[in-house]
This record gives sequence, C-alpha cells and structure tokens, in this order.
Amino acid sequence: MKCVKCKGDAVINIRRANAAFCKEHFNEYFTEQTLKAIKHFRMFRKTDKIMVCVSGGKDSLVLWHVLHKLGCDVTGMYIDLGINGYSDRSKDKVNSFAERFGLKTIIVDLREKGHPIPFVARKAKREDCAVCGTIKRYYFNKTAYDGGFDVVATGHNLDDEASRLLANIMHWDDEYMNNTYPVLPAGGKMLKKKVKPLVRLTERETAAFAILNGIDYVMEECPMSKGATSLVFKDALSTIEENMPGSEIFFYTKFLERVKDIDRSKTDSDEMKICQTCGMESFMDKCTFCRLVEKVK
Amino acid sequence: MKCVKCKGDAVINIRRANAAFCKEHFNEYFTEQTLKAIKHFRMFRKTDKIMVCVSGGKDSLVLWHVLHKLGCDVTGMYIDLGINGYSDRSKDKVNSFAERFGLKTIIVDLREKGHPIPFVARKAKREDCAVCGTIKRYYFNKTAYDGGFDVVATGHNLDDEASRLLANIMHWDDEYMNNTYPVLPAGGKMLKKKVKPLVRLTERETAAFAILNGIDYVMEECPMSKGATSLVFKDALSTIEENMPGSEIFFYTKFLERVKDIDRSKTDSDEMKICQTCGMESFMDKCTFCRLVEKVK
Repeated sequence: MKCVKCKGDAVINIRRANAAFCKEHFNEYFTEQTLKAIKHFRMFRKTDKIMVCVSGGKDSLVLWHVLHKLGCDVTGMYIDLGINGYSDRSKDKVNSFAERFGLKTIIVDLREKGHPIPFVARKAKREDCAVCGTIKRYYFNKTAYDGGFDVVATGHNLDDEASRLLANIMHWDDEYMNNTYPVLPAGGKMLKKKVKPLVRLTERETAAFAILNGIDYVMEECPMSKGATSLVFKDALSTIEENMPGSEIFFYTKFLERVKDIDRSKTDSDEMKICQTCGMESFMDKCTFCRLVEKVK
Repeated sequence: MKCVKCKGDAVINIRRANAAFCKEHFNEYFTEQTLKAIKHFRMFRKTDKIMVCVSGGKDSLVLWHVLHKLGCDVTGMYIDLGINGYSDRSKDKVNSFAERFGLKTIIVDLREKGHPIPFVARKAKREDCAVCGTIKRYYFNKTAYDGGFDVVATGHNLDDEASRLLANIMHWDDEYMNNTYPVLPAGGKMLKKKVKPLVRLTERETAAFAILNGIDYVMEECPMSKGATSLVFKDALSTIEENMPGSEIFFYTKFLERVKDIDRSKTDSDEMKICQTCGMESFMDKCTFCRLVEKVK
C-alpha cells in the first residue's frame, strides 16, 4: 500500500477517500479536513479565543493538538466528573498532554464543588448520562462566559454526528434533527457559539492521528455509558459504511446542506431571565443546573 | 413462554409488540395487522378484483393465503424469469400452492416470450436487477390491465420497506423517499393502483406464518441478487431493532404520517402517449420495456 501523495509506504487506507497515506501526508489530510470544516461552516477566526472541551479521550486531545498546531489561541477545559478511577486516569492524560505542549488549561472539579455525577444521579434519581449532560453543558457555558472565550469547540467526529443524526431521524425528532449542525450560534447574552471542527473525520481517523503522533489518551469509555444506545446506531452505520464506503459522510453532509438555512439561535436575549441562584442566563428564575444540584443538598 | 391471549403455550415472541402468541392467536394477530394496513391506507374494497404478484417466496404466498382466507377475489400472477433452476423451483411452489387451495393463477413465461432476464441483461449489457425490475413492472401493469384487475398487491414486508426507506434517506433521494408509501394510486388510463398489505409485518413474522400454516415456499434467494445493497440496509436496521425493539416500525410508520399528503399520482392521462410497439401507455412513443427487449432481437 503506497501513499497517494509521495508513493512512500502508507500507514493508513481511507476507503471513502479512495486514498492511502504515509504518516506525513495523513497528518496533512487530517489538518486539511479540519480546516475545510472550520472554513466551510465559518466556525471561528484566527484571532478568536477558543475553549476546547477535553475529556482525555482521543477526539478532544487530537482537536486540541490540531488547533494548537494551526496557531489558534486554545485553552483546554476539563471537567473532573468525579467518577472513581476513570476521572483520575483521564485527568492525568489531559494534564500530561498540556504539560508536554505547554498548553493553557482550566480544570473544573465536580468533587470539590460537591456534585460529582454518580452522587447527583443517585440522589436525584435520574439517569447518569442525563445528569452528566446537564452539568457539563452548564460548566461549558459558564466557564466560556467567565473566561471571555469567543467560541467553545468539542471533539465530536463524523461517526458521532452521523450516528446521532441517524438516531434522530429514526425517531423523527425534528427539533434534534434541526440542531444537528456543526455550528450552533451564540444566544442570549451569555451563551457562546459552539463548534465541532472534526465532523469530516471518523473515529478511526482520530485514533490513527493520536497514535501516529504519540498523543497518549484514555482508551476506556466512560464506565457509566455502558449500553448507551448511541453505540447501536454507530454499529448500524458502520455496517453500511463498510459495505458502501463514503455512505456515511454523504448522508451527513447532504443533510447539512438541506438544513443549512434553518435559524438555530434558540434564545433571544429579551426572552432570557437571570438565574437567581447562580447569575447565569436561564429561561426560568432558577436554571436547570441549580434546580438539579439543589436536590443533592 | 405463554400466549398473551389464551395463556396456552406460545410459539412465537414478538418483542416490538411485547407479546407472545400460540399458533391460533399468532394467525389472528397476523391477519389483524394485515387488515389494519388495508383499512388505514384504503388499499381496496371487499369487491375489488385483486392481482397478487407471487414469486414463490414466503411473503407473496403468505399474502395470497391471507387475502384468500379473508374472502377477497384474488388471482396469483407469477412471472417465470427464466433463471435456470431457481425459476423452475419457485414456479413449482406457486403451482402446488394454487392447486392446494384451488386458487386462480396467471403465469407469464419470459422464456416463451423470448426475453428471459439473464439473456436480456447480457445482451443489453445492463445489471440483472435493473433489467428484472423493468420487465416485471411492465408485465405487472400489462397483466393487471389486460385482466381487468382493480388493484395489484405485492408481498413487501416491513423490513423491505423500512430498509428501502433507510437507503433512500441515506442517499437523500427525495423522489424515492416520497414514493415510499404502501399505496401508489392508479395513473393514466392503464396503470393500476399498487398496494402492500404486509407492511406492518416483518420478514420473521411472514416466515413464521408460512411455517406454522404449512405454506411451502422457495427458501433460496434469487441467485442473481447476491450482494444486493438492500441486504446491507436490512442488516443495519436489524442491529437497531434487536437492541431497541419497536424502532423499525416507529421509524417507518412515523415517516408515512409525515408524507401522507404528498400527491403520488405520477401520470396525468393527458400527458401519456401510447407505445407504438405494444399499445401500452408510455411517456414516450416507445415504452422502456419495448426499447429494452428490442436490443435483444
């Protein structure tokens, strides 16, 4: 297998692109695909202050790495979810990575704050992943607002996005379908723009990028996400992609074209109130996050 | 496992219905689901003259059986595609079935007519399945028109329809998506209404119905359809259905609700011409079928 660019020995074959690459040209391809997404969806400008949400997994560390190499002003933001063992191991990966490349980080520690995920979920009698979603969203927004960031970037890849789209289509959930987009605009006075620069790259490609570039990431999945339905849709899509390479990105990008003109700005600043407890914007007098963590006290 | 109706020993468990049935109550369930589709989509009236397209496979023989038991005026229409071995074996199944229940049949023999599928595909240098589709559609229409039938019924089941819908969505093919409907209206002066009464039942259920009721069908798939992409989409859907029973029928029926008001009458009789060769309606002076079989001469 030869690299399509230099005819040297290839290290990876990308069937949907009908191309194999050596390490150097795979890195080039990977960066090009990231830039293509950033430019096409106007995710941010070179001068923007970017907060990258990092979990210690391959996607977010790779995104952080690529944006840093592109010369962007990036800060990694890590939330210690308070999941014994897993959280410690993933925080270690984030810290070593930041140290190695001399990167800025912000760590939010839910144990210190008194609401680690397993504890809140148990006390509130709610599903772990639902609780985790509410709490993470809150701290993403709050940290980005407090830190004066222009944009919040996450490491969602093509498989994440296409499988989520498939799930939403199978449920014909219009609201979720319409929000399947790699850019969500800022809203109200406090909600920052959200972007997903890796949407043109698959999980296999982010893993390959991490391995080839010596990015040490936490391999294990979150122990609380076992049996997550998202994995089922990923399995189904990979059956299709394996038999018909290119189907997944066609499905996803063609959908984006169809919905590109939908207005996704959910919140008009006039509609928004201020949470009486935490001071962040909310649709109600007390925000969802504050109502949740109050149950735990 | 007990039957939910009579508490007798169950022979089948239908996870999406959260119900197990004995033979008698499975037959009742099966007939009810068929009737539900017929009524909901206004497929035909009790007095209509129905032509059922039969292949010798489980779905079409089961449909023929159920409609006959319901007291409908059904005639089985079988096309001998001229595929060595397979066509002979499937024709035998159709003939034995018709004889056993004293049913009316019409047999169209493509070998006699001089255009068996493998021969036409080779001569015309076209894909087998595409050629087969064109020729079958032609004889379905022509036979129904010549025989004065009111409606043409086919044995497509839920898996067929949901996987075809998934394929069309993954390609974002609007025309095909909009035509994914269990009833297609009559068109022009000659095109008969087409209906799919088994769309609420899965392949597993039609197979079970056939086996439990001693309906002897040809088990083998058409040898020319090997590697058909439709199987890939069925695989993907079954991964989802197995993990989340009920997803498939939800996906399909919810879609139908969304598109129920689309006008699917393709052909206005004013627009239609008469094929100068065969006398059937066509968009052109010579119909697609006649242009195809002419290549073979």
